[in-house]
Amino acid sequence: MAKKPVTACLIIIGNEILSGRTQDTNLAYLAKELNELGVRMVEARVIPDVEETIVDTVNECRAKFDYVFTTGGIGPTHDDITADCIALAFDTELELHPDVVELIKRREAPPEVMESRLRMARIPKGAALIENPTGGPPGFQMENVFVMAGVPMVMQAMATTFNKERIPGGDPLRSRSIGAYLSESKVAVNLGAIQEEHPDVDLGSYPFYRQDGYGTNLVMRGTDEAELDEMLGKVRQMIVDFGVEPFEE
Amino acid sequence: MAKKPVTACLIIIGNEILSGRTQDTNLAYLAKELNELGVRMVEARVIPDVEETIVDTVNECRAKFDYVFTTGGIGPTHDDITADCIALAFDTELELHPDVVELIKRREAPPEVMESRLRMARIPKGAALIENPTGGPPGFQMENVFVMAGVPMVMQAMATTFNKERIPGGDPLRSRSIGAYLSESKVAVNLGAIQEEHPDVDLGSYPFYRQDGYGTNLVMRGTDEAELDEMLGKVRQMIVDFGVEPFEE
Repeated sequence: MAKKPVTACLIIIGNEILSGRTQDTNLAYLAKELNELGVRMVEARVIPDVEETIVDTVNECRAKFDYVFTTGGIGPTHDDITADCIALAFDTELELHPDVVELIKRREAPPEVMESRLRMARIPKGAALIENPTGGPPGFQMENVFVMAGVPMVMQAMATTFNKERIPGGDPLRSRSIGAYLSESKVAVNLGAIQEEHPDVDLGSYPFYRQDGYGTNLVMRGTDEAELDEMLGKVRQMIVDFGVEPFEE
Repeated sequence: MAKKPVTACLIIIGNEILSGRTQDTNLAYLAKELNELGVRMVEARVIPDVEETIVDTVNECRAKFDYVFTTGGIGPTHDDITADCIALAFDTELELHPDVVELIKRREAPPEVMESRLRMARIPKGAALIENPTGGPPGFQMENVFVMAGVPMVMQAMATTFNKERIPGGDPLRSRSIGAYLSESKVAVNLGAIQEEHPDVDLGSYPFYRQDGYGTNLVMRGTDEAELDEMLGKVRQMIVDFGVEPFEE
């Protein structure tokens, strides 16, 4: 039996993602990083910069998943409302965090600019900071909710500070991948049979269309390396039996 | 007063997006296409190929938003369970749709392969087809839920068949964009003031970090072109008053 996986949900906050103006890349990045800690990304939500939506989504997801990560909305402007929403969700208040105030004041600025910058020192009572190795203001962790920047470079820098002590997980998922110029329909029955023999491994089939033809990529994902190798052998043999050369990426 | 917007939610179905293996691009594409029809993408969910999750998410979202779009899981293999889930969500059954059966049978195949292909002709009772201009099997529409392929090329082909008759919307959002090498903190107070003067327009600020320096892109989004131009003028003037040259993209 596979152990119950440790789960995470990513909440992507930002009108610019929903309008199509900005392409999110944080989901794919964080999913891979968390997997190395044995935490499985099992859902993501993209929501607008709307207080009620953010509060409700955070509260729903923090009850439903082991970890929740948010990206976006922690800058210094009027549309950066994530910290306020997290405080509301946890029924607590924001306070100026002395370490963040000190960090921000290290760089001088006119009073008006400093006041805007100090918005980024407003951290919910009881939250722990998430260090920001780019030198900018940190994110923060409130119970199982990790609040991060939306700019990928900054989010990725914050993610480098995560480790198994802070984010305990289970076994990482490992994968095997093999492809062939065979249609999904051709391999469907055999794939179904192989999947049934290995219920603890997720076997996905992904059609591709290239200039030199179409085919299918087959991806196995599970925690047991030996079982993955066994399954890969079966899938490889199936492809060869169709008289086609498999390619492994 | 702005009219109540017509809303949409995209449900992205697929383990491969959640694992980080595949980068979703359908959200950004569909958001822009729907905006032209006056339909606003206000939420997106990325969920795994798990029956209960798909059924629950579809039922929650179809009650909450004017339109729901799904991508992924309508191919011929064992992990393609979207059609089954939609039938469950609407408490109806799948039947072989004669037009789709005919389309699929046009291309000959051994019985086993044909059987897998015919899985793609299983359409919930009462659904309307969404034509697939690539020549492959269609998607389908069940009430306000539009079920589409996950492969971007195929999804985009299906989306070309949408129009104002099938998907009635409101006014499309229009946008103005201007940037400057000014930090978000510098412009924050002025931006907040401009936003307050134009509550019906969404004014977003997006920091950027380039080799030649950092700055902020400012994006205004609303339905009233004249108001957008007026606001753009104010933001441009603000930038000039900081002694910086704005750039418009």
